[in-house]
Amino acid sequence: MLNETIRSKLSQVSTATLCTALFKAGLRNQYIQDVRPVQPKGKNMVGEAFTLRYIPAREDLNQLTVFQDPAHPQRKAVEDCPPGSVLVIDSRKDPRAASAGSILVSRLMVRGVAGIVTDGGLRDSPEIGTLAIPAYHNRPSAPTNLTLHQALDIDVPIGCGDVAVFPRDVIVGDDEGVVVIPAHLAAEIANAATEMTVFEDFVTEKVLEGRSILGLYPPTDPAVAKEFSQWRVANRR
Amino acid sequence: MLNETIRSKLSQVSTATLCTALFKAGLRNQYIQDVRPVQPKGKNMVGEAFTLRYIPAREDLNQLTVFQDPAHPQRKAVEDCPPGSVLVIDSRKDPRAASAGSILVSRLMVRGVAGIVTDGGLRDSPEIGTLAIPAYHNRPSAPTNLTLHQALDIDVPIGCGDVAVFPRDVIVGDDEGVVVIPAHLAAEIANAATEMTVFEDFVTEKVLEGRSILGLYPPTDPAVAKEFSQWRVANRR
Amino acid sequence: MLNETIRSKLSQVSTATLCTALFKAGLRNQYIQDVRPVQPKGKNMVGEAFTLRYIPAREDLNQLTVFQDPAHPQRKAVEDCPPGSVLVIDSRKDPRAASAGSILVSRLMVRGVAGIVTDGGLRDSPEIGTLAIPAYHNRPSAPTNLTLHQALDIDVPIGCGDVAVFPRDVIVGDDEGVVVIPAHLAAEIANAATEMTVFEDFVTEKVLEGRSILGLYPPTDPAVAKEFSQWRVANRR
Amino acid sequence: MLNETIRSKLSQVSTATLCTALFKAGLRNQYIQDVRPVQPKGKNMVGEAFTLRYIPAREDLNQLTVFQDPAHPQRKAVEDCPPGSVLVIDSRKDPRAASAGSILVSRLMVRGVAGIVTDGGLRDSPEIGTLAIPAYHNRPSAPTNLTLHQALDIDVPIGCGDVAVFPRDVIVGDDEGVVVIPAHLAAEIANAATEMTVFEDFVTEKVLEGRSILGLYPPTDPAVAKEFSQWRVANRR
Amino acid sequence: MLNETIRSKLSQVSTATLCTALFKAGLRNQYIQDVRPVQPKGKNMVGEAFTLRYIPAREDLNQLTVFQDPAHPQRKAVEDCPPGSVLVIDSRKDPRAASAGSILVSRLMVRGVAGIVTDGGLRDSPEIGTLAIPAYHNRPSAPTNLTLHQALDIDVPIGCGDVAVFPRDVIVGDDEGVVVIPAHLAAEIANAATEMTVFEDFVTEKVLEGRSILGLYPPTDPAVAKEFSQWRVANRR
Amino acid sequence: MLNETIRSKLSQVSTATLCTALFKAGLRNQYIQDVRPVQPKGKNMVGEAFTLRYIPAREDLNQLTVFQDPAHPQRKAVEDCPPGSVLVIDSRKDPRAASAGSILVSRLMVRGVAGIVTDGGLRDSPEIGTLAIPAYHNRPSAPTNLTLHQALDIDVPIGCGDVAVFPRDVIVGDDEGVVVIPAHLAAEIANAATEMTVFEDFVTEKVLEGRSILGLYPPTDPAVAKEFSQWRVANRR
Repeated sequence: MLNETIRSKLSQVSTATLCTALFKAGLRNQYIQDVRPVQPKGKNMVGEAFTLRYIPAREDLNQLTVFQDPAHPQRKAVEDCPPGSVLVIDSRKDPRAASAGSILVSRLMVRGVAGIVTDGGLRDSPEIGTLAIPAYHNRPSAPTNLTLHQALDIDVPIGCGDVAVFPRDVIVGDDEGVVVIPAHLAAEIANAATEMTVFEDFVTEKVLEGRSILGLYPPTDPAVAKEFSQWRVANRR
Repeated sequence: MLNETIRSKLSQVSTATLCTALFKAGLRNQYIQDVRPVQPKGKNMVGEAFTLRYIPAREDLNQLTVFQDPAHPQRKAVEDCPPGSVLVIDSRKDPRAASAGSILVSRLMVRGVAGIVTDGGLRDSPEIGTLAIPAYHNRPSAPTNLTLHQALDIDVPIGCGDVAVFPRDVIVGDDEGVVVIPAHLAAEIANAATEMTVFEDFVTEKVLEGRSILGLYPPTDPAVAKEFSQWRVANRR
Repeated sequence: MLNETIRSKLSQVSTATLCTALFKAGLRNQYIQDVRPVQPKGKNMVGEAFTLRYIPAREDLNQLTVFQDPAHPQRKAVEDCPPGSVLVIDSRKDPRAASAGSILVSRLMVRGVAGIVTDGGLRDSPEIGTLAIPAYHNRPSAPTNLTLHQALDIDVPIGCGDVAVFPRDVIVGDDEGVVVIPAHLAAEIANAATEMTVFEDFVTEKVLEGRSILGLYPPTDPAVAKEFSQWRVANRR
Repeated sequence: MLNETIRSKLSQVSTATLCTALFKAGLRNQYIQDVRPVQPKGKNMVGEAFTLRYIPAREDLNQLTVFQDPAHPQRKAVEDCPPGSVLVIDSRKDPRAASAGSILVSRLMVRGVAGIVTDGGLRDSPEIGTLAIPAYHNRPSAPTNLTLHQALDIDVPIGCGDVAVFPRDVIVGDDEGVVVIPAHLAAEIANAATEMTVFEDFVTEKVLEGRSILGLYPPTDPAVAKEFSQWRVANRR
Repeated sequence: MLNETIRSKLSQVSTATLCTALFKAGLRNQYIQDVRPVQPKGKNMVGEAFTLRYIPAREDLNQLTVFQDPAHPQRKAVEDCPPGSVLVIDSRKDPRAASAGSILVSRLMVRGVAGIVTDGGLRDSPEIGTLAIPAYHNRPSAPTNLTLHQALDIDVPIGCGDVAVFPRDVIVGDDEGVVVIPAHLAAEIANAATEMTVFEDFVTEKVLEGRSILGLYPPTDPAVAKEFSQWRVANRR
Repeated sequence: MLNETIRSKLSQVSTATLCTALFKAGLRNQYIQDVRPVQPKGKNMVGEAFTLRYIPAREDLNQLTVFQDPAHPQRKAVEDCPPGSVLVIDSRKDPRAASAGSILVSRLMVRGVAGIVTDGGLRDSPEIGTLAIPAYHNRPSAPTNLTLHQALDIDVPIGCGDVAVFPRDVIVGDDEGVVVIPAHLAAEIANAATEMTVFEDFVTEKVLEGRSILGLYPPTDPAVAKEFSQWRVANRR
């Protein structure tokens, strides 16, 4: 479960560091491919995955009237996604029609949802970029959702950008992209990434001072370990 | 429902003619894209869809031991797909690892299943090509399924080759490819395609005799209608 | 024809809303795929399409000397595109060489042309981004046009980003992308989109106030209709 | 112009040899990319290009009724393409719907047309494969043409598989693929390729006898020239 | 090293079984993607990798005269590739120009080379298909090699179809595709795959007799182990 | 060799103008395709190429421990790339895992390296964007390098974005993209591009004053040559 401690840690590490921590844990394929922020936010998105699955739209089942049904899965997902969670949409990597638009994303924002991710496209993307909720997609896409997508079910395991996403997996996004942390590893990965971040900050400082990376990164020179300990103390990390 | 009359009609028309009949019914996107027979069979595959959904494989969940579970969805699908049905697999259009191999396809054959379709790849494709069951895929793919795919659930609506496939939709394949007929339209489309096939056979005969297509195809020349009626009688069609 | 009333309306609606209006009119494929602004302008581009068609370049026909011919279609298009129109180029979705560069786009700007769209790339894109004319492309592309493209003819129907574009169709671009409105539907779509925009503004306001989308969007709750009427009066929309 | 001498020569050389002859003439991009025979024929297709241009289909303009118009460009192309010519279709490299089907290809065959080439797909491809006319496409595609394509004009310069094709260019296809020879170079290239083929046949014979390619191919060893002369005499080439 | 025992074993197992054995050894990415036999041969290609690396062609360095140099890496590779080895070419997955043609492949055949693999295309592919040497490529490609490729060096580690290939790795191809076995694992994988093949043959026999795969494949039913032992004895496997 | 005069000239011309100069010299393919600045810098990157070649990663050879080897080619490249040079990485156009991250790029910056280019992705891209060193890639990519790439060798000829890059070739990047100038042509191309830039500046000024491009660009009107001479004098160019 994503408690506040883990959430806080995950809000202060990068997706790059998380990918390395996951790689060490034997998971090489947790970065959602070819997805980017609608607008960089300068801070992390963190939340448990709440999923929405699309299949290709068949014309007779996807007239605009379908949205009149309060149980339509896209509408329902927007109302049901828990505050603090991230809505992750399987759009089959097809950005030729929108996965969602600004009104739905505004509703998610007002409801306290932590963010939205689709491996398709978002419409009204200029407006979405101005909202106080992080949003990730492949590219802007104005055509209405029903043109190519039928929202089918909610909170089932899905694929998104070639990554498996299970409900409750922990989703972290930064200005680079989005990573999926299996639920049972969230604490372990958060801790590992936090430790790695401290060391990377130390390394970056040394590199900017002119130090070679050899011996330092990774720290094969035994003196580095000692220097790092002292740096942690001095920097209260 | 796919009764024997409809099945018989659908076994005698081409996927091309079915696509035209579906186009007339307002459905433009029922042909599974970029999928081909492992081996042309010279006759049609016809059956109701029984579906299997894959998501991307996460390494820890997809060791070879998973197949020891008799409830593993891939194994279960192979044992549960009803005789006369077609197993349709959503492999997310990813043929880099196999959707299934010759042992499973042999089991489907022995069980009387009508065929198998994946928008990914099949392994042991040379052997599969020799089996008495039609099989359609994107391209041969030797890597084991677990490399990239996790079988997740059975008989839910899926996408396959950019087409929506609902359980019980009627699947027809010929040496060209595979088309998906919505269940409620099966009789209507089978009848329309049968009628169109009669006319196309008439047209083909006339074209091979040297007739221009103008006025004949489509039959804008009123004389063609009369000629066609006589041809039907003469040819008992 | 694109009169000032229609132009004004189209300058105040989004491409997303236009796509929905076109979808309602039975046109699902009017959004130019995978094209983006060189630089977001914060306001709409609106104009009738004036087209330019490229075919692949054959080396012997595409030496730099061809530009000495005042009748070269690319040069001619730049001088002939009417003020207020949008130059739309069929570059066969190939951005590996430029469709045009900053000098030509500057000339279009000075001539009062409303914008330029290509499904290929533009060169000198940093400079083009600073010009007071909207420009849309797939990605920056420095190689000279002749490397891969031969300008062939002007103001014929073309494809651009998988959309049919007929001369005089109305082209609308915003910071999301570009939509093509068939000429004969321009007034109808402009009106429909304007009405939809009023309603969407109302909905957005309510959503930001904390309202659920259920019953509101679409307005299945009868009370919403009344509330919207009052809102229109109050907001003079 | 493609006279019988040139046609005869071009029917006895490979597309590979023609590509090399064109490369020597400074033309590197005359091979139609990603197009293959529906069925290998074991002999060459040779003819002048007669072209047909498609643009993306807009739904309202592409109902099945359009084929009732005898001037519809697709139907007209099939009736007007001169005997001995090759119908080359610009399908924008989109095989998701058919460029043509077996009835039209049968009509072309009966009319004495030399072949058909599209960078899209053909429907009824199993039947087309049995016809006595060579046909080249990207892949089989059952959906009717109108689903994605609108035939727009006839016998204009086009792109096909990333190659420029001008009416009257000479098209040669073999079991490998299709090459486009600019009209004014047809004789020169036919002669060059014929000479090259004689030499390649000589080289192949020597290689199969166990000779190293060094010195032989290309013939940098002066003795090879003499040996080749003798071989030509002996083999009456 | 690839001795005759290993070679013999590898000639009797499928690439699919080899991929599973490699998967068990922790190697998930040894199948050369999107490469197929020019012509199915019905038997395996087995040999150590001898590599050839191409980079993109720069026009001034890649005139036809370069082949006059006996040290040109492509020509040299063809003369130097050891008998019994497989020539594996890194063509950067670009089949738009040929990696090699029939004369070079004939020379390889005469020299006793075990096969050729490229992730690009082969020219003269119809002739190559008739030669007594297995050849694998992405698709036929008539343009001469120099159009897009410059042969750069020989017998260095390369990528081919997204797989790392080191000189002396063992390459196995069947009618499905090509797999790369790291040199140090050749014996281990050959043995494992041989054992797996025996079991798969047993399973196939049982499945064709009507047995369910549950309990049998994998053999979770303890009775299967005993039955399999008896089958091995009875079938002398 | 890249002396200061050439470097200075190349820092003041655009990649678009350089591509035209290279086109005139017969080189049509020197623009690295589908690569963009991590962050536009508003000034040019200029330096000689120092190259790094990646092949696909095999899992057993690419554990995180490999970075402990001071001779690991990626680490070595970062320490050995000469100040003033550009590190160009052949990542096989695969951005699914990172080519490098912010610590390595920081080290390059501190060492005085002129820039970094990969046809894959960079991780920590938001940080890299803030560094005082230009960096070009396909897209951000958080997964660690070893996930898909094995650094193999240094300073050999490579392909990058479909362009041949030889060590010491001159690399120029601007806010549009990156061009590769063969070493022996650096002075010639720098001079030609400088001259062209003067003329283009003159043309741009005239176009912005309202002049037609006909006769001016290219300057087929003889009066333009005289006017341009006077402009050069007046503007001290």
